[in-house]
Amino acid sequence: MSQAFLRCATASRRRFLASSAGLGALAIAAPALRSVAEAHSEAVVATAPTYTRTVGDLEITTILDGYLQFEFGVFRGIEQAEYEEELRNDFIDPGKPLNVGVTAHLVRAGDRLMLIDAGAASAFGPTAGRLQATLAGLGVDNNSITDLLITHLHPDHIAGALVDGKAAFPNAALHVNRTEVEFWTSESNRTAAPDSAKGFFDLAATAIAAYGARVNRFDGETDLMSGVSTHPMPGHTPGHTGYRLSSGDAQLLVWGDMTAIAPVQFERPSVGIIYDIDSEVAAETRRRVLDMVATDRLLVAGTHLPYPAFGHVDIAGDAYRWVPDQWQYAG
Amino acid sequence: MSQAFLRCATASRRRFLASSAGLGALAIAAPALRSVAEAHSEAVVATAPTYTRTVGDLEITTILDGYLQFEFGVFRGIEQAEYEEELRNDFIDPGKPLNVGVTAHLVRAGDRLMLIDAGAASAFGPTAGRLQATLAGLGVDNNSITDLLITHLHPDHIAGALVDGKAAFPNAALHVNRTEVEFWTSESNRTAAPDSAKGFFDLAATAIAAYGARVNRFDGETDLMSGVSTHPMPGHTPGHTGYRLSSGDAQLLVWGDMTAIAPVQFERPSVGIIYDIDSEVAAETRRRVLDMVATDRLLVAGTHLPYPAFGHVDIAGDAYRWVPDQWQYAG
Repeated sequence: MSQAFLRCATASRRRFLASSAGLGALAIAAPALRSVAEAHSEAVVATAPTYTRTVGDLEITTILDGYLQFEFGVFRGIEQAEYEEELRNDFIDPGKPLNVGVTAHLVRAGDRLMLIDAGAASAFGPTAGRLQATLAGLGVDNNSITDLLITHLHPDHIAGALVDGKAAFPNAALHVNRTEVEFWTSESNRTAAPDSAKGFFDLAATAIAAYGARVNRFDGETDLMSGVSTHPMPGHTPGHTGYRLSSGDAQLLVWGDMTAIAPVQFERPSVGIIYDIDSEVAAETRRRVLDMVATDRLLVAGTHLPYPAFGHVDIAGDAYRWVPDQWQYAG
Repeated sequence: MSQAFLRCATASRRRFLASSAGLGALAIAAPALRSVAEAHSEAVVATAPTYTRTVGDLEITTILDGYLQFEFGVFRGIEQAEYEEELRNDFIDPGKPLNVGVTAHLVRAGDRLMLIDAGAASAFGPTAGRLQATLAGLGVDNNSITDLLITHLHPDHIAGALVDGKAAFPNAALHVNRTEVEFWTSESNRTAAPDSAKGFFDLAATAIAAYGARVNRFDGETDLMSGVSTHPMPGHTPGHTGYRLSSGDAQLLVWGDMTAIAPVQFERPSVGIIYDIDSEVAAETRRRVLDMVATDRLLVAGTHLPYPAFGHVDIAGDAYRWVPDQWQYAG
């Protein structure tokens, strides 16, 4: 499957547009995400760092699964000159592909050991997929993971939940939005998708099948368990969901791909990416969530936020500003 | 010596003011830097992360020696309400001591292996002093360090250059500004200093003696060796010096304590700390260097900048903004 995905991510530059019930435009393609195997031979960083901070009584470890390389072609709703200006404003060289981290979050909460998203495994080439090795390095037994909280079923979030096509976490409940499951396991959606995107559907279906009766399909906004509630953030995918963790007065919102590209999407929340199923809905969601998070001064975490992927959002004029969490040297 | 320093850092809240030739007010004290041994029993973070990025052909590794805890009493030229507002603007809880990282930078440059500053060893208690263990973890033999570039002779920069009072890096040249050496080895300055500060002088003198003939006292702005020049930044201490590293078109300015406290001193460059020998000169230097670095879009590193302590400076109104370097996932 991983080889198929590698091909799928690099084979085609076609863009697919079709209508899908209730979703407006369905658009799936993988033209501008470069497989590093294709792009160059730079080695992945040798060690997979981890970073742990507390949120109340919770202990949250950011696991760096690796990174992906984005180019301008990934974006929607921004001109190339504007894109390059945004990168320069953050002192990033626009002449190079943009390396974007892929993280997952391990949550120790009393007798539960949760994993929020699971990394890319080998779906996007050798620069990601270090989750399993990193968990082993942390001394985490896969059997001890009680819950997988999946923000959405894109490969860089779900592929790592499988090893050899089987459940990597044999005792974990897999929590995922019901609409998300229905979208990615729909035979008609798969049929309508271009060849370059069919692998996304196959992977999602394989994961849902692998976790079988342990898949907990939830609807909308709900309390999953004590201290964990779901926060619908549709657009990037139909059932894309954030998770709000609470412990005492402390809260953390883990928002998956609500922003995928920090140097661009805080300053320009309307900018989408080609992986959005509906960029317009995604942009509305982004405005609403950024406004809420800034107003409530919520601590957030996200898959592709700059490592170690914790921070806050500040209002900056009519847009927003990412404020990385101060490095927690202790406590 | 380490026990003496621990006492020295916690024994007294007196402030010492005296005049010193050419320096205006000499002020040394250690009232508001809490030794964690005194403050509470939180363990230091278990692992010492390292982070490596390239600058041209140079390979620069940030070593996290540990952290110090600052309280409002450390600052000069800011009201408590203003201080707390600055922290809140960065989503930092002003009700807690401010944890400030202590880093050192290992530079691989062709056949030279340089260390810029050397951490605190045990001079400030158990939350810092992990340089030696981290170098060992990186497989760096102390004998292989060719050059120590010391920004100034405060304990959190020089104590780690000693082990049991002897040179920790027996083959290294120790580069340090001549005025800096003269200041801290002056018997009259030591005599005039309060008991709480005498340890600073003793440590500096011990280090200079330990490296003996291998101490390279330089003056002002000079080329130390190919690709390394010095940049005088006086005020925090009389001979406080930044190092500019160059490789091809790429440059990095390592500025020691030019800013000690990122959440405060970019927004308010005039704010000093009690460890400044001359806060007024330090503030002038800070304005000048921040302006230069922002104008030239220079990559900078500094001892107490937020880990991993690389970034750029942007102009923000009539002040400045710290822009952390994008995490270098590879290359």
